[in-house]
Amino acid sequence: MSQTVFDTAEYDRRIARTKARMEEEGLDAAVVSDPANMNYLTGYDGWSFYVHQAVILTPDRDEPVWVGRQMDATGARATTRLTEESIRPYSDDHVQSPRDLHPMDFFADVLRDLGVDDGRIGLEMDAYYFTAKSYTRIRDNLPEAEFEDITLLVNWVRIKKSDAELKYMQQAARISENAMQAGLDAIGEGIPEYEAAEAIYSALIDGTDEYGGDYPAIVPLMPSGDYTGTPHLTWTDRPFENGDPVIIELSGCRHRYHSPLARTTFVGDPPEEIAETAEIVVEGMEAALDAAEPGVTAERVEKAWRDTIAKHGVEKKDRIGYSMGLGYPPDWGEHTASLRPGDETVLEENMTFHTIPGLWFDDFGVELSETFRITSTGAEPLADFPRRLFTA
Amino acid sequence: MSQTVFDTAEYDRRIARTKARMEEEGLDAAVVSDPANMNYLTGYDGWSFYVHQAVILTPDRDEPVWVGRQMDATGARATTRLTEESIRPYSDDHVQSPRDLHPMDFFADVLRDLGVDDGRIGLEMDAYYFTAKSYTRIRDNLPEAEFEDITLLVNWVRIKKSDAELKYMQQAARISENAMQAGLDAIGEGIPEYEAAEAIYSALIDGTDEYGGDYPAIVPLMPSGDYTGTPHLTWTDRPFENGDPVIIELSGCRHRYHSPLARTTFVGDPPEEIAETAEIVVEGMEAALDAAEPGVTAERVEKAWRDTIAKHGVEKKDRIGYSMGLGYPPDWGEHTASLRPGDETVLEENMTFHTIPGLWFDDFGVELSETFRITSTGAEPLADFPRRLFTA
Repeated sequence: MSQTVFDTAEYDRRIARTKARMEEEGLDAAVVSDPANMNYLTGYDGWSFYVHQAVILTPDRDEPVWVGRQMDATGARATTRLTEESIRPYSDDHVQSPRDLHPMDFFADVLRDLGVDDGRIGLEMDAYYFTAKSYTRIRDNLPEAEFEDITLLVNWVRIKKSDAELKYMQQAARISENAMQAGLDAIGEGIPEYEAAEAIYSALIDGTDEYGGDYPAIVPLMPSGDYTGTPHLTWTDRPFENGDPVIIELSGCRHRYHSPLARTTFVGDPPEEIAETAEIVVEGMEAALDAAEPGVTAERVEKAWRDTIAKHGVEKKDRIGYSMGLGYPPDWGEHTASLRPGDETVLEENMTFHTIPGLWFDDFGVELSETFRITSTGAEPLADFPRRLFTA
Repeated sequence: MSQTVFDTAEYDRRIARTKARMEEEGLDAAVVSDPANMNYLTGYDGWSFYVHQAVILTPDRDEPVWVGRQMDATGARATTRLTEESIRPYSDDHVQSPRDLHPMDFFADVLRDLGVDDGRIGLEMDAYYFTAKSYTRIRDNLPEAEFEDITLLVNWVRIKKSDAELKYMQQAARISENAMQAGLDAIGEGIPEYEAAEAIYSALIDGTDEYGGDYPAIVPLMPSGDYTGTPHLTWTDRPFENGDPVIIELSGCRHRYHSPLARTTFVGDPPEEIAETAEIVVEGMEAALDAAEPGVTAERVEKAWRDTIAKHGVEKKDRIGYSMGLGYPPDWGEHTASLRPGDETVLEENMTFHTIPGLWFDDFGVELSETFRITSTGAEPLADFPRRLFTA
């Protein structure tokens, strides 16, 4: 009954690359708890990251070991090709237990059973859902072990996408185009923000004629009016007003792969100042896309944007993008390469970035984004959506 | 421009109760990083929990100090009534920094500035988003401090709801009713799962004629067919088939307050066995609701369910519910009192629980849930939705 979305060879390649990195770090085990990394290595998928879970890799085992809650073991059987001996569920009395019992006690048992309790164990110390208590508990349980921080180890393995991954990101881009259009169509004077959010969400899940969409790792964000400089507020009952700039940032999602897209619209006739700002943002974005190609550094892409807006008298030094793809709430970013000053990551074919430059002034902001793939010679945006200021 | 959803007196009461608990624990500071607890104490709301953030309480300051990312400070000004000196943003170079710079370095500075760097500091060690690295980093920065685990300290303060909170939970219940009806209407033979998900999501955000809905802390879940025993799988492109049982679990959300609701439907004519199981589940649920009243223990409610199903020859000892209300992804549960054997929490008026008992067999499951409030004399379900097996 497996629903894995990639073939076995793809997972094998991912595991081999991760093990090569583990060997470089001299690790006897890697406890991978970031849900996106768990999915990447095994296919495991489910809304179960609100309890402690991880997959554990050891050099001598071909497949990872999944450790999670009893009621999610069936989900592991359904979404991975792991054999039964690699699915190790803990009983429900470990969950939010008033007694002194923690899932990491069970994890320690598994690590002991794998023979690595006196080894060098990698932990994703700064990954979502790997709590402080997870660390102190596993440490106290395994006094002979040595622990190393492997935050981002798997994330860096994820940076170049396979053709199969790119197919899902392309599908996500189709969904993003539909959802952006739905949002632009819905926004208007007097329409409450939540109605626009509903139109966008509906399109995100309806997908296309051929396939549906998954839930995105971040909800659609629509900062508007005085709040365009407040990027992470979510929608309210407030009606859009004539004179509101509205930034829409959203992402279609397909098998957990994203292709984010942002555009700005204006309720009513945009003042000259906003229209001009939008033109600068478009010009800067296109300069950034032109600069991106294999062999150049991530910071070089940001510089192309910065140099372009400087020609218009705007001085701004910012992070304008980041590597992304597979993701779960709260984020679709991979937390590895950033398009920002100082990031010397050399771009390679099939890396994928979301670039979201924007310009904010005292009372309004304009933002525009593209998700793009590095091709053999340049950069290819995944979505095909006009780059301009819209009006509502 | 504050959008706070409760009056100042309500936040003052919450802070006073939290400080009383801090005093009992002998704390000089509490670093509260669970986004629901941050919201509870200040009103702070935003999709910013993908970066490190917290509010810090100290006994001598009237208001908490918000610490978060620079670009979210405007969100703190918009959604809280904190004065400017209580909003302490860290610069963007702390975010996913390739250099050795971490947001907790800034947190340590704030704690030093508050004069508690050699004090007894409470940390929510097992809360979402407070990572292992957050702990080791703050510990290494403040060698004179003593740290105490205060996971659930604020959560327990949240267990009894105010009238204002109950109003939002009631509004969430209206949304849940609409969304459940939309889901039941959408499901049918040949309909892909994502179309039902779309109908539910659309209703969740459309809300009612009077107000819209927020994003719920958990996406709608619809385990179906062979997967009814796999509660945390999310929707796919698979069409529902004649003979599929489908469990719908969802929650309306209003100002981050939830009122979850679950029902089971059957595509086609349900076999006698499923219809009978559904009747047992309904009878057990009603026994549990009848048992709930001020003065009885949480475990007593579970026992009422268990004794009822035992009369029908079903033996099952489970956690059938939990305290809930305010929440952010990945969970709407409060992680405090559970309706399960061994939980001796004494129920009090205006506690709120989601009870979700179910019976699973080899090839199907039936589940039914209610969110209820403890009244002065009993239990009152928030939603008004028929308790039976539905057919599609």
